[in-house]
Amino acid sequence: MIISMRPHAPKSEIDYVCERIREFGYKVHSIEGEERVVIGVVGVGDVTACLESLEATPGVERAVRISAPYKFVSKEFKKERSLMRINGLEIGGDEFIVMAGPCSVESERQIMETAEAVAAAGARILRGGAYKPRTSPYDFQGMELDGLKLLQKAKQATGLLIITEVMSDRDVDMVAEYADIMQIGARNMQNFALLDAVGDQPKPVLLKRGMSATVEEFLLSAEYVLARGNRNVILCERGIRTFEKYTRNTFDVNAIPLLKRLTHLPVVGDPSHGTGKWYLVAPVALAAVAAGADGLIIEVHPSPDHALSDGFQSLTFENFAELVGRASAVARAVGRAVRDAAPA
Amino acid sequence: MIISMRPHAPKSEIDYVCERIREFGYKVHSIEGEERVVIGVVGVGDVTACLESLEATPGVERAVRISAPYKFVSKEFKKERSLMRINGLEIGGDEFIVMAGPCSVESERQIMETAEAVAAAGARILRGGAYKPRTSPYDFQGMELDGLKLLQKAKQATGLLIITEVMSDRDVDMVAEYADIMQIGARNMQNFALLDAVGDQPKPVLLKRGMSATVEEFLLSAEYVLARGNRNVILCERGIRTFEKYTRNTFDVNAIPLLKRLTHLPVVGDPSHGTGKWYLVAPVALAAVAAGADGLIIEVHPSPDHALSDGFQSLTFENFAELVGRASAVARAVGRAVRDAAPA
Amino acid sequence: MIISMRPHAPKSEIDYVCERIREFGYKVHSIEGEERVVIGVVGVGDVTACLESLEATPGVERAVRISAPYKFVSKEFKKERSLMRINGLEIGGDEFIVMAGPCSVESERQIMETAEAVAAAGARILRGGAYKPRTSPYDFQGMELDGLKLLQKAKQATGLLIITEVMSDRDVDMVAEYADIMQIGARNMQNFALLDAVGDQPKPVLLKRGMSATVEEFLLSAEYVLARGNRNVILCERGIRTFEKYTRNTFDVNAIPLLKRLTHLPVVGDPSHGTGKWYLVAPVALAAVAAGADGLIIEVHPSPDHALSDGFQSLTFENFAELVGRASAVARAVGRAVRDAAPA
Amino acid sequence: MIISMRPHAPKSEIDYVCERIREFGYKVHSIEGEERVVIGVVGVGDVTACLESLEATPGVERAVRISAPYKFVSKEFKKERSLMRINGLEIGGDEFIVMAGPCSVESERQIMETAEAVAAAGARILRGGAYKPRTSPYDFQGMELDGLKLLQKAKQATGLLIITEVMSDRDVDMVAEYADIMQIGARNMQNFALLDAVGDQPKPVLLKRGMSATVEEFLLSAEYVLARGNRNVILCERGIRTFEKYTRNTFDVNAIPLLKRLTHLPVVGDPSHGTGKWYLVAPVALAAVAAGADGLIIEVHPSPDHALSDGFQSLTFENFAELVGRASAVARAVGRAVRDAAPA
Repeated sequence: MIISMRPHAPKSEIDYVCERIREFGYKVHSIEGEERVVIGVVGVGDVTACLESLEATPGVERAVRISAPYKFVSKEFKKERSLMRINGLEIGGDEFIVMAGPCSVESERQIMETAEAVAAAGARILRGGAYKPRTSPYDFQGMELDGLKLLQKAKQATGLLIITEVMSDRDVDMVAEYADIMQIGARNMQNFALLDAVGDQPKPVLLKRGMSATVEEFLLSAEYVLARGNRNVILCERGIRTFEKYTRNTFDVNAIPLLKRLTHLPVVGDPSHGTGKWYLVAPVALAAVAAGADGLIIEVHPSPDHALSDGFQSLTFENFAELVGRASAVARAVGRAVRDAAPA
Repeated sequence: MIISMRPHAPKSEIDYVCERIREFGYKVHSIEGEERVVIGVVGVGDVTACLESLEATPGVERAVRISAPYKFVSKEFKKERSLMRINGLEIGGDEFIVMAGPCSVESERQIMETAEAVAAAGARILRGGAYKPRTSPYDFQGMELDGLKLLQKAKQATGLLIITEVMSDRDVDMVAEYADIMQIGARNMQNFALLDAVGDQPKPVLLKRGMSATVEEFLLSAEYVLARGNRNVILCERGIRTFEKYTRNTFDVNAIPLLKRLTHLPVVGDPSHGTGKWYLVAPVALAAVAAGADGLIIEVHPSPDHALSDGFQSLTFENFAELVGRASAVARAVGRAVRDAAPA
Repeated sequence: MIISMRPHAPKSEIDYVCERIREFGYKVHSIEGEERVVIGVVGVGDVTACLESLEATPGVERAVRISAPYKFVSKEFKKERSLMRINGLEIGGDEFIVMAGPCSVESERQIMETAEAVAAAGARILRGGAYKPRTSPYDFQGMELDGLKLLQKAKQATGLLIITEVMSDRDVDMVAEYADIMQIGARNMQNFALLDAVGDQPKPVLLKRGMSATVEEFLLSAEYVLARGNRNVILCERGIRTFEKYTRNTFDVNAIPLLKRLTHLPVVGDPSHGTGKWYLVAPVALAAVAAGADGLIIEVHPSPDHALSDGFQSLTFENFAELVGRASAVARAVGRAVRDAAPA
Repeated sequence: MIISMRPHAPKSEIDYVCERIREFGYKVHSIEGEERVVIGVVGVGDVTACLESLEATPGVERAVRISAPYKFVSKEFKKERSLMRINGLEIGGDEFIVMAGPCSVESERQIMETAEAVAAAGARILRGGAYKPRTSPYDFQGMELDGLKLLQKAKQATGLLIITEVMSDRDVDMVAEYADIMQIGARNMQNFALLDAVGDQPKPVLLKRGMSATVEEFLLSAEYVLARGNRNVILCERGIRTFEKYTRNTFDVNAIPLLKRLTHLPVVGDPSHGTGKWYLVAPVALAAVAAGADGLIIEVHPSPDHALSDGFQSLTFENFAELVGRASAVARAVGRAVRDAAPA
């Protein structure tokens, strides 16, 4: 931590700041510059508390944190990449993984057809929402338990693993029964009760970045889960909110290599939410692969214009199959292993 | 709803779009322009579903909603202002209301002293967090039930009403026992399980705008609560996230008159979070009053540099008392009633 | 300047960094923490060059500037407020100043009528664009020299001072002949050739904040003008670009007290561009006054729905007169002097 | 254009709006809905003027433009891709093009060494700033004419084409003498005097997206150049400003396929400014290629920590050569032609 005092702050203020720092258990190193004193804070203690306290102390101009605020998620804590092994599948390793399926589970026919189509095209994991967070209370809120059961059925038929969203700490046990990976949606990235709840159980968690979360906040939300004991977290970049109105979100492709540099956790990209336009999904998916993502999560629907949610960003089976082929070529070009699609 | 087709879309696409619209129960009015066909959609139906479906339909360039997506919160539904009457206090009426207190309840002494100081300065409601949503799992998370009990004690001593945050649908019943107003924090503005839970009980709710929520999304979150039956919602502008780094958030002063125009609900301003710098709190508080806010919610601490959270944006008792005086003068200048501070 | 090295950076990297710092003429103070070395840089030199160089040096994690990057605009350089005195008018002093007029000068009748109306309501300065920066090449680009001449005529008739925009360094001399204050628009806030040109002449300059400029960048653009010798700069907050779509821009009310704290220059608010909706102009204008602005600049048109530009954010004469009355009441409430409107 | 009236607007307001529309030369189609009247505007006229006028008219809730506001840049105007042919090089065709060089020209040795290194690695065009737009007046502003002459020398030695920035309409003729492509920087994207000046001459222009410009505004700035007669415009995505602070800008990878869909002009990516961190440049460059960019522009310096500007985002010769190899592999994977690097 570094504290810079206001220019020409009186000695009494500087002394008081040093005293406060020592109360937090730190040592103090003062540097006297031309205009102001800068104080280096050294040692081990409660950084955030000390920092916030000093920012409120008279004479202090700025308090800057030097060390990262997270621990378990960081590369400094664990150098080698974390591999999630689920039923023989490995996420975060050499192989490039595709998750796909509809925004919402809508009917048995819809989810079974989609599961078969995405499996045939090369997906390894089926996505599908049973609990849907919707901006409006009047929109379709999901099939809930019935949706979870249909996902299970699709898993039995195709061998695909299941990823589905959990929206409340109350539902974690039930969703964990049906899901191989539990998804925390962007709107719940800072629902700390929910993060604690998924951290207290062992099932892998895919955590989506909040639409206005910085990379640091994103990692701190993952830290909540790891700090409770669950080390199986996959990070998902899904676009951030910016001034641009043409696209639903701005896919933050920078975040992919940045996260790979800061953390050992796997990172996947969601170009469906990241663009919000079906015709931009494929090129942005390829971009995510080229930037180093460990996988993709893609919305696919048998008939996008009949989808109960997110049809405008869903691919048809045909477009999805074409995308998988192109993504595989890019994945190979950047040195990834690619499993061949199941023979028809 | 208005659907604009791509330039020179073939007749088959236009016919298919019209057919889809009719399937949703609407009537169709086509307008043929120089370059493209525009289709007006008239009638009553599931607007969002129809809109999303059409955006995914071939040949459609754009689908624009015309009517507001919310109902109970809108001025069109209820023309007169909603007044929250709580123990003889009226929020949303002529009188200008001040809520104040520490970010977190930290100790009996801290909350009792603060309650007395803010009551003496003219506040009518005591704020204080017992459950704290913190970006990092390593930061102070609040005193929980003990904090609620201390708030109750402060209420008994001062007569102030109590506002405090609830973070999970599991805790609603317990918090409702101690709080006069339950606060939903910015990070939980789209925690729909929580919105449903506070909507299912009668205690007033202060809903904070999410840090990247549009005004429309903010109103839709309020709509969740009203749609479940609880009409006692107060809206709180607390700053949005922008590119500016000097301040913690950008207080969106535009939102105050905009919300007053769109909804009948009371609107208050939180300049503490809206600026994140104690020395900007007073001028931005005055701005909120001038723009038409029905009240303010302000962080106050006996010793901001010893606060366990948010000290850098907390006012001392002295600064708070001065602010109330200045805010009262501005409130009178814009035609508000101002209660005199309790005699010492 | 503070340099923090990566955790456990080798001694060779630390030595190289210290050597580079000394090459820039600075002294070095190392602080050895638990995990990393932090280096304080003391002395006088080319801060930006040194900072950018160090950020590119192996082993450096972060380089943080401590001192402000600007000089002449800062409160540290000049403690007392700068007063612009123009023909007996004083901007930045106790009196609250209103500038008003149409977005564009459109005709003699339009500008003369508007000048008389705004003067009668209490404005002291007439605004009106002769050169218009327009997003599209197909929109009305202004009356140019003819517009300047009409402004001069309106000045002669009413005694109002004239503020008008200059868009290119080529036009500075000509515009300076007609204007009392030259406006640099938001889109040109970083047109450095233009900043240099207005800095090389003595006429006062009103500099608008760029729509995505930080407060620091805004002050650095003002510094360009002051560094060339022209100390007569007025800063104008006019709204920033955010994710919110309902309003044209988000008026950054925080910036007003922040600028007043950082600089001695006068600060005015432009709620017309800051909101982009005529019905939000008045409340946001009042907010700017309450937050401490030294003045307002407001778009007014005899018939907003016939305006050639910005009609949707222009006030009618009647609404403007009402606003001036309300703004005067707020100005008095925050301790400003207010000149009475000219008797009819 | 579609005009939606406020709910239950009186007939007199509706009639007045229709009359105003007809004054602009359009025809009117009214649609009566349950709550409000929506008016379709058909025909040819001044869309922006009509739109802005109607937004200011009583009773109008919203006015929505349907047709694109630009013409010459659009795919509707010209279906086939525009190829820029410059001295035997083709930009916008099948071949993938790399432009590279230092942020600023600093010395003969620096630019000659860099030119040779980037040519050897496979670049076809040399970048280097002679006129530098700098946020602070105290930073290095470029070598100006001397810099242009050094670029010419590097061109003669290596055969690379030259791209360099022009900052003022005054300098266009001089810069055009030395440059093969003139760059308009992000800060000048809406410097309309400059856009007009480069539009009035024939040399190709690389237009960078402004840091807070929407895709629509970006295309309108290109339209300024094309409307003056110069059809040789290359668009460059270079990152936008968002709330994320870790990276200098957020590279908007969505914009690449979106621009390719909306316009026939070539599109290149600048991952150096798009990330602001040298260690993110390569992965984001690959992302841009995968998303469909026609080329890259990359900052390269012989010794980044000695650069006078932008060292922290510049690649060494070695890192650049590695990047070109990886980008070529990705380019081939998405079906691009790649020229082999010159033999050593």
